Amino acid sequence: MKIVDKINKALEDDRCFWSFEYFPPKTQQGVMNLYDRIERMCKLGPLFIDVTWRWGGRSSDLTLELCSNSQTVYGVEANMHMTCTNTNFGLIKDALEKAKDQGVQNVLALRGDLPDNTAEFDPSVGEFKYATDLVKYIRSTYGDYFCIAVAGYPEGCMGPEDVDRDIQYLKEKQDAGADIVVTQLFYDVDNFMAWVAKCRLAGITMPILPGIMPIQNYGGFKRMTELCRIEVPQEIWNRLEPIKDDDQAIKDYGIEVAVDMINKMKAGGVRGFHFYTINLERSTRLVLEKLNFVPAVSEVRPLPWNPSLSEKRAGENVRPIFWRNHARSYIKRTELWDEFPNGRWGDARSPAYGELVHGVQVRLPADQALRKWGTPESVDDVTSIFVRYCQGKLDSLPWSDTQLQAESTAIQNQLAQINGAGFLTINSQPSCNGAPSSDKVHGWGPSNGFVYKKAYLEFFVSPANMQALLGRLATAPTVTYYAVNKAGELFTNCAEDSPNAVTWGVFPGKEILQPTIVERVSFLAWKDEAFDFWNAWSKVYAEESLAAALLRGICSDWYLMNIVENNFQSHPEAIFELFDDFAGQRLASHLSSALVVGSAVVALLAGLATQRLSLCFYTYVCGVVLTYAVVLLPWPLYNRSPVVWLSRKAPATSNDSVSQSLKTLVEDVSDDSDGSSE
Amino acid sequence: MKIVDKINKALEDDRCFWSFEYFPPKTQQGVMNLYDRIERMCKLGPLFIDVTWRWGGRSSDLTLELCSNSQTVYGVEANMHMTCTNTNFGLIKDALEKAKDQGVQNVLALRGDLPDNTAEFDPSVGEFKYATDLVKYIRSTYGDYFCIAVAGYPEGCMGPEDVDRDIQYLKEKQDAGADIVVTQLFYDVDNFMAWVAKCRLAGITMPILPGIMPIQNYGGFKRMTELCRIEVPQEIWNRLEPIKDDDQAIKDYGIEVAVDMINKMKAGGVRGFHFYTINLERSTRLVLEKLNFVPAVSEVRPLPWNPSLSEKRAGENVRPIFWRNHARSYIKRTELWDEFPNGRWGDARSPAYGELVHGVQVRLPADQALRKWGTPESVDDVTSIFVRYCQGKLDSLPWSDTQLQAESTAIQNQLAQINGAGFLTINSQPSCNGAPSSDKVHGWGPSNGFVYKKAYLEFFVSPANMQALLGRLATAPTVTYYAVNKAGELFTNCAEDSPNAVTWGVFPGKEILQPTIVERVSFLAWKDEAFDFWNAWSKVYAEESLAAALLRGICSDWYLMNIVENNFQSHPEAIFELFDDFAGQRLASHLSSALVVGSAVVALLAGLATQRLSLCFYTYVCGVVLTYAVVLLPWPLYNRSPVVWLSRKAPATSNDSVSQSLKTLVEDVSDDSDGSSE
Repeated sequence: MKIVDKINKALEDDRCFWSFEYFPPKTQQGVMNLYDRIERMCKLGPLFIDVTWRWGGRSSDLTLELCSNSQTVYGVEANMHMTCTNTNFGLIKDALEKAKDQGVQNVLALRGDLPDNTAEFDPSVGEFKYATDLVKYIRSTYGDYFCIAVAGYPEGCMGPEDVDRDIQYLKEKQDAGADIVVTQLFYDVDNFMAWVAKCRLAGITMPILPGIMPIQNYGGFKRMTELCRIEVPQEIWNRLEPIKDDDQAIKDYGIEVAVDMINKMKAGGVRGFHFYTINLERSTRLVLEKLNFVPAVSEVRPLPWNPSLSEKRAGENVRPIFWRNHARSYIKRTELWDEFPNGRWGDARSPAYGELVHGVQVRLPADQALRKWGTPESVDDVTSIFVRYCQGKLDSLPWSDTQLQAESTAIQNQLAQINGAGFLTINSQPSCNGAPSSDKVHGWGPSNGFVYKKAYLEFFVSPANMQALLGRLATAPTVTYYAVNKAGELFTNCAEDSPNAVTWGVFPGKEILQPTIVERVSFLAWKDEAFDFWNAWSKVYAEESLAAALLRGICSDWYLMNIVENNFQSHPEAIFELFDDFAGQRLASHLSSALVVGSAVVALLAGLATQRLSLCFYTYVCGVVLTYAVVLLPWPLYNRSPVVWLSRKAPATSNDSVSQSLKTLVEDVSDDSDGSSE
Repeated sequence: MKIVDKINKALEDDRCFWSFEYFPPKTQQGVMNLYDRIERMCKLGPLFIDVTWRWGGRSSDLTLELCSNSQTVYGVEANMHMTCTNTNFGLIKDALEKAKDQGVQNVLALRGDLPDNTAEFDPSVGEFKYATDLVKYIRSTYGDYFCIAVAGYPEGCMGPEDVDRDIQYLKEKQDAGADIVVTQLFYDVDNFMAWVAKCRLAGITMPILPGIMPIQNYGGFKRMTELCRIEVPQEIWNRLEPIKDDDQAIKDYGIEVAVDMINKMKAGGVRGFHFYTINLERSTRLVLEKLNFVPAVSEVRPLPWNPSLSEKRAGENVRPIFWRNHARSYIKRTELWDEFPNGRWGDARSPAYGELVHGVQVRLPADQALRKWGTPESVDDVTSIFVRYCQGKLDSLPWSDTQLQAESTAIQNQLAQINGAGFLTINSQPSCNGAPSSDKVHGWGPSNGFVYKKAYLEFFVSPANMQALLGRLATAPTVTYYAVNKAGELFTNCAEDSPNAVTWGVFPGKEILQPTIVERVSFLAWKDEAFDFWNAWSKVYAEESLAAALLRGICSDWYLMNIVENNFQSHPEAIFELFDDFAGQRLASHLSSALVVGSAVVALLAGLATQRLSLCFYTYVCGVVLTYAVVLLPWPLYNRSPVVWLSRKAPATSNDSVSQSLKTLVEDVSDDSDGSSE
């Protein structure tokens, strides 16, 4: 969609709007971080985002990739910068073709910096001399396809002496076909407002978006304003001077300045504001919060995930739940599909997912990962990392770069408990039995509707624990599951390969929307990625280390399992009752350890105090007998198969007999559940 | 599907099953009645039905049509009889081709009666001499496509002397490719069981279904058994003799005999029973009920309507709600579609409904219709017919051959009320907020699921009443509606032509099924049929009569309207609150009439008693003033627009100014509802 249309709509509604500008980072790590940031900042409701441009293979490709992914994965309109001096016609043509191919429909046409910023501009170099030439070329070649933005210079491009000439140039850009103006950053609002008035007088009718850059630190701010010859009101320097060594105070004051500027412009009738974020999040977010700028209603979740803006995916409204935290990978792996599931999964299912091109990666650099997750040397260590994540004590896992989804915080205690029992969850959703579509946590879609969810858990589990859980599931007719190991051995109680809708919504005058599903083919495609994270994580440690071996071992032996409690009308914790046995076992194991250790300590103390070895001996024996009587005798209450708990203690190893017995069990289970579902 | 497969499955499950045999009626009325009967009897869960065969254009075509429609419309497997003597090869070939074309996959191959039943059978006449020839021909020509049933004669085809020879013939039929045996009717169970044993000894392994015909009356039974040389145990004659003039007692005894016979055979290991219904319903139903033979679980409503067994419609699982009581017409009008809606309506919507070939018809013969519905001479008369139908005092309307659907009995009082207020309902469903799929009234689909419904009303309404209702709907943001008159003028608050799912179900491991929808294109196709019933009804009366003119007037002037209360979570009566104003008006109108008439009577009596004219006058004036004070002064409470009620008194006439004002109103309404739904 063209940004100018969105802007005109907002102006028509007399509604404030804002946009964020980013630059392509230099490192792969930086790129991943920027994606996460863009995704988070999309929740602030920008009308569009900008990505700056630098010529040169990787850099300009990255700009295009960031733009295209932002549109496709995060569903936000992207405006791609493009400069035209010191390059040749062929490169520009190529870049525009690629942009069009990838569905980018907005370009900010710039002249671009000269190779040496201090050099005089020589119009005889390069085929495009001015931004106007680029505007003309784009408009004449692509007709109405692109929305063309151009830069405005309220304080003159090269200094105040150029202001009037620059307004003439801006008018020429408009005449050449430009649609909107984004200004250079500034801090003098009065000057900006006067400049806008001059532009209007000169016949410039395009929407003009002022550029705002919240001050981040004193040194950088000083250098930047000098270099770009930006006039900063003396009042700002006066306020900065006393706090110049206190970065936090500078940032806070920067927020205050931005809020004041925007309020003043808003009072003067300005509605759109362009933030130069320099890839930072906090200041921009706080400015918007202080201004009480909240996403417009129409920007609020039409679906529980971000619908893609790519034209090809226009009808897409169903996705498997598995890639919920990995939308970019899902989109990458399905980009060659001819059709996307719409309405229901069955309609347009493509036979094959694309390959994982680069494999998966842990987002954190190795040193940070080490600091955050430590060096697990036993399954219990791994377990405790997952438990801490569920408890909110860790803010990421290799599988998840952000904290638990808001909806899952309601079940975080239960999640922590089953993780503690050896079911390492990487995805979950609580059930929801018809919340209003306006619900803060669960809501999505048009107003006056109702949204539903089936409870969902996805976790890694040792073969033995899975075996025990399958036994439990045999008596749970409303639960469906898939479990698969890295080698592809699959256990399921789903007879057909029919998709299971796990999120759906009912709205006035509409068919039922069912945007999230669980189904076999996509689960099998996802499992490769999910298992790969174990290997990626193991690479944080030395190849020969115990930690690396442990993680590789889990990767090759354990199962990835998902279960759906199809009875969404039962209470939200129902799905966790399936794990009660395991929690009981764990309690029992802790209790028995505590009793045995406790009695040994008491025995020792008694021995020391009384100098009688026999007392020591009897005390210890009493403790063991007590443990047996209180904890181990009623063992069958905790679980039918004690082997499960024992096996959890040691890293499980896959072997044929386990697989064999599992298969037998599953056959029994299928028979049972057929019978009981009649 | 082949019956033999269904039978083998039932035998494998050791489950009793039953089937019903019908013959093609001679009159069009009879055919319509038989269709209704077949539809009702399908609810008794027959494994299949049989339709007998008589050569000759209309009769054999009718057999095929009954079979094909039973499969397509009522979703029951049909077994088509076919005889082969005294006809030629070409006709048989044609008939089999037609059967295959129409998806009939089961044939009962018979030799057929000789032209003169008393004549000797002459094997030299006709190309097919014996049923075996027909079996051979079908099997060799069509391979495995058809399931071939053949007749068995426990008492000999032409008499007891033939029994052993007939068993040889039966074995030959098996060798020629027959799959199952349906026997001639009989009453001597011991003989039947012995005969089955002989068959088995002779190597006949096919399933054998005994033929049961509940005795219906003495004379007919006597003639039939003599003609067919059927041995009836003396005990039965003894019991029949004393009650032979009491038809009801005969029927009751007939039921007892059938139940005893079946129980005896069941004890002997027989599982399948074939009922010769002679197109009657009651005895068969009562026999099944006494035996506690209830439809097998798998036979219970996979969808809220009967899924078609036609291969072409195999994936169909969405239908518009409008033809709920007219499935045959829907299937007829969509039979040329290439694809049928599956999953959701949008996927496979055909652009056009076929034409109504023969128009619609009132099912009752004119004399019965007259007796049932009387001769309406005013809108109020018509109204009262609809009210009585809702109250269960009438068992059919031109639009509906059966009583209110079971689910609607819960709202029948409210329906009666709004019908009384001039909203003549022809279709309705109460809302249902997640009943178990096993629910007796609302349930359908696999076990452990939940089913939902949005409240739905479809009614005829005068232009003035519609205008008033549209005003009311403007403040009901969760209600969507369509209203259209015969000429096609449409009023709606649905912006897009998107289907509205009004019945859906959520099941373990499945996508959401949404089998019933409301949408524009199909509503416009349906309205022609719906309006046509007024004309069909008017033909019960003389063309120049007031009744006929009235019904034709309603047909041409009124609107057909449907409304959906999209908030299915509100209480089931919420949709009726939209009509509260109208019920209030009606009460007010009755009250004011009663008061005025009452005061006139009192005035008259007072005048007569006291001989004083002035008292008479004052009493009457008092009554009128009271009426005004109590009823008419608070009129605004009843309704904002008194014209509505007044206009209901006279048959409404369509005119341009009404249409114009409606259009203006609808535009206002749309604006309002857009605003309020934000």
